[in-house]
Amino acid sequence: MAARRAVIDAVEGVCRSYGFREIDTPRVERAQMWTDKSGEEIVEELYAFEDRGGRHVTLTPELTPTVARMVAARQQELAKPIKWFSTRPFWRYEQVQQGRFRQFYQTNADVFGAASPAADAEILAVAADALTGLGLTAEEFEFRVSHREVLEGLINSYDEGGEIDSRAAMRAVDKSETVPEREYYDLLVEAGLTLDQAREFDALIERSDLDAVAETAGTDRVREATENLQAVLDTAEDFGVRRYCRLSLDTARGFDYYTGSVFECFDSAGEVSRAVFGGGRYDDLIESFGGQSTPAVGVAPGYAPLGLLLERADVAPEAAIETDYYVLRVGDTRSVAARIARELRERGHVVETDVADRSFGAQMSYADAVGAETVVIVGERDLADGTVTVKRMRDGEQTTAPVDAFPGDRERPTYGDFA
Amino acid sequence: MAARRAVIDAVEGVCRSYGFREIDTPRVERAQMWTDKSGEEIVEELYAFEDRGGRHVTLTPELTPTVARMVAARQQELAKPIKWFSTRPFWRYEQVQQGRFRQFYQTNADVFGAASPAADAEILAVAADALTGLGLTAEEFEFRVSHREVLEGLINSYDEGGEIDSRAAMRAVDKSETVPEREYYDLLVEAGLTLDQAREFDALIERSDLDAVAETAGTDRVREATENLQAVLDTAEDFGVRRYCRLSLDTARGFDYYTGSVFECFDSAGEVSRAVFGGGRYDDLIESFGGQSTPAVGVAPGYAPLGLLLERADVAPEAAIETDYYVLRVGDTRSVAARIARELRERGHVVETDVADRSFGAQMSYADAVGAETVVIVGERDLADGTVTVKRMRDGEQTTAPVDAFPGDRERPTYGDFA
Repeated sequence: MAARRAVIDAVEGVCRSYGFREIDTPRVERAQMWTDKSGEEIVEELYAFEDRGGRHVTLTPELTPTVARMVAARQQELAKPIKWFSTRPFWRYEQVQQGRFRQFYQTNADVFGAASPAADAEILAVAADALTGLGLTAEEFEFRVSHREVLEGLINSYDEGGEIDSRAAMRAVDKSETVPEREYYDLLVEAGLTLDQAREFDALIERSDLDAVAETAGTDRVREATENLQAVLDTAEDFGVRRYCRLSLDTARGFDYYTGSVFECFDSAGEVSRAVFGGGRYDDLIESFGGQSTPAVGVAPGYAPLGLLLERADVAPEAAIETDYYVLRVGDTRSVAARIARELRERGHVVETDVADRSFGAQMSYADAVGAETVVIVGERDLADGTVTVKRMRDGEQTTAPVDAFPGDRERPTYGDFA
Repeated sequence: MAARRAVIDAVEGVCRSYGFREIDTPRVERAQMWTDKSGEEIVEELYAFEDRGGRHVTLTPELTPTVARMVAARQQELAKPIKWFSTRPFWRYEQVQQGRFRQFYQTNADVFGAASPAADAEILAVAADALTGLGLTAEEFEFRVSHREVLEGLINSYDEGGEIDSRAAMRAVDKSETVPEREYYDLLVEAGLTLDQAREFDALIERSDLDAVAETAGTDRVREATENLQAVLDTAEDFGVRRYCRLSLDTARGFDYYTGSVFECFDSAGEVSRAVFGGGRYDDLIESFGGQSTPAVGVAPGYAPLGLLLERADVAPEAAIETDYYVLRVGDTRSVAARIARELRERGHVVETDVADRSFGAQMSYADAVGAETVVIVGERDLADGTVTVKRMRDGEQTTAPVDAFPGDRERPTYGDFA
């Protein structure tokens, strides 16, 4: 976990610095929450089963319906906006491949109760700060920012007879990068567009010209949605993260519950071909769980694809084992060795000592294996002289120190203090 | 999570300081691992199901078989002793009651590859340091220390015809505190003892006199086991934690896989009547997963019962929400407010700012609700004069500061710096 913990700490540190508060969430929920809210595809991937009480439950494949349900249950007691984050595994029974496993970790960060584009922009800022905090630059990643209301509004402007399934169309757009063009058009036609409309729609969203989209659609709905998207991008500029964002209307996200801005993070070099992670606005979900109407927007960096991105950029943290002190015991000196180890731990250090009754050589080799910086040798003969030996592992230099003065007043005694 | 995170951080901090390394472990495993290794009771409580690949799997009810399997798979590559910890939820479908839920968190800490009593003592020391680090004292908890080999050896010394089921007898001892005495004797008789033997056995373990036990059993096996248990307690003295331990042979632990020392942590005041948590030695488990013979000992503090213990002792951390700065925006000042918020975050502070386009009053009320220490007011009129207002929330005192010097060189600028 050493390397993964460093990445998680960096991401969570950014969430905390923006005032997101950590929550815990159930791993097992009623399966119906996903069959109702998230879309067809994920239902095929659920680890669902009947529990001993006859409930149809599932391991949670993502967090959004769960936090929406939690907000709906408690929104009266909480100061708004509610800003929550959590890091935990999710489960989907899908094809295992590079950067994608059946158990995978995400940090979810969500803002509830803020309809302003500033909330969308803050979510983009949290995500961008997390990545730059890990050492990534604007050359290495981009956020492709889009808007569900723009896309659905545009789709619906083609809908004269009420025959277009705009959710199916959104799922088609979400697949546009991963399926052949012909299949993508087929999906749009299945959703109710004519082939000509599908081609025009595709050309428009690929150009990502908001004015052209608003003009083609010709509805107030799409005009307002394009203005909202522009305001999100403008506020991202205020927040210092506009340079990581690219307007990209051919991004849609897979889940049905999105209602406004959506975005996906991509590897700019294109080596990680799928989205690294994504997020967006889902203003209707809390009400659908019986809560008051509550706007919401969130993001969920996943650690497996993020790890690939960090490796490609050569900034992945090392999985090194670090140890400040190994207190080596020779002969019947356990109580002194234990006292020294305890006092060093009280000063906040990582301290190992012998728990296997091993020889000097075996202990020294173990100290080396765990990367001990300093070895304190507590031997019977030294102790008779009132000393211990302090060994610097980097170069093997060693000296003696008075046992009564070790560690003494020193916060971090080393070879240099006694040589 | 604020209060629970403080407790987890304290426990994990102690694990890290002893050189335990964090690992991650699967939440879903083959159900057979528990039906084979852990004993009957837990099998009744499994969240088991068949996955989409036809595997009979379960949500993991405890960690020990999983880490044993992991060690068996990797033991060649790892420097021994292997010292691992992890914090995560487990699931058991049992009766929900005070301090016991169907999803519950534990931190598991285990040492693999060390047969010495020093390893058992280090596990006791980690557990004791975790509790005292949280503010508990020797008046508030005790570790009841026992030994499976002593108990099973004693049981087997009654076994003339090979008719005693010593595992069943261990489970009976484990229940002795929670079932009526008569039922306890019945369980021992079912395990193969005569009623007289059951009474003698019970009296012996209640006295917890190691010499008397060794003498009654009259076998080398029990003599060696009592010596091992004494050595564990003596080493706990070296490690500075003997005072938290009480020899208590009527403790057995519920799982079948324990082989040596076992212990349970109890609330000394007796208000939390069940064991708060426990641990022990399980030297045969790794070999049973196809690994080399590898001694192992571990402990697993659970946070729900631990929370009750902390509350009773009045040392439970507060679930307070803390915020260093709220940067309040009035009028069209977003870019300056965002710049100040960003620079304060870069200095490591928790900083919130408006993401809901709210009024002065609504923002101030939110700042209060999230416990902001300082509010920085970025107003249009102030800005025209080149200033911002710095307000100390504790007493409402406020003053102005030059916007260009905020935060400037200061690590943590406050009202006092400008008043």
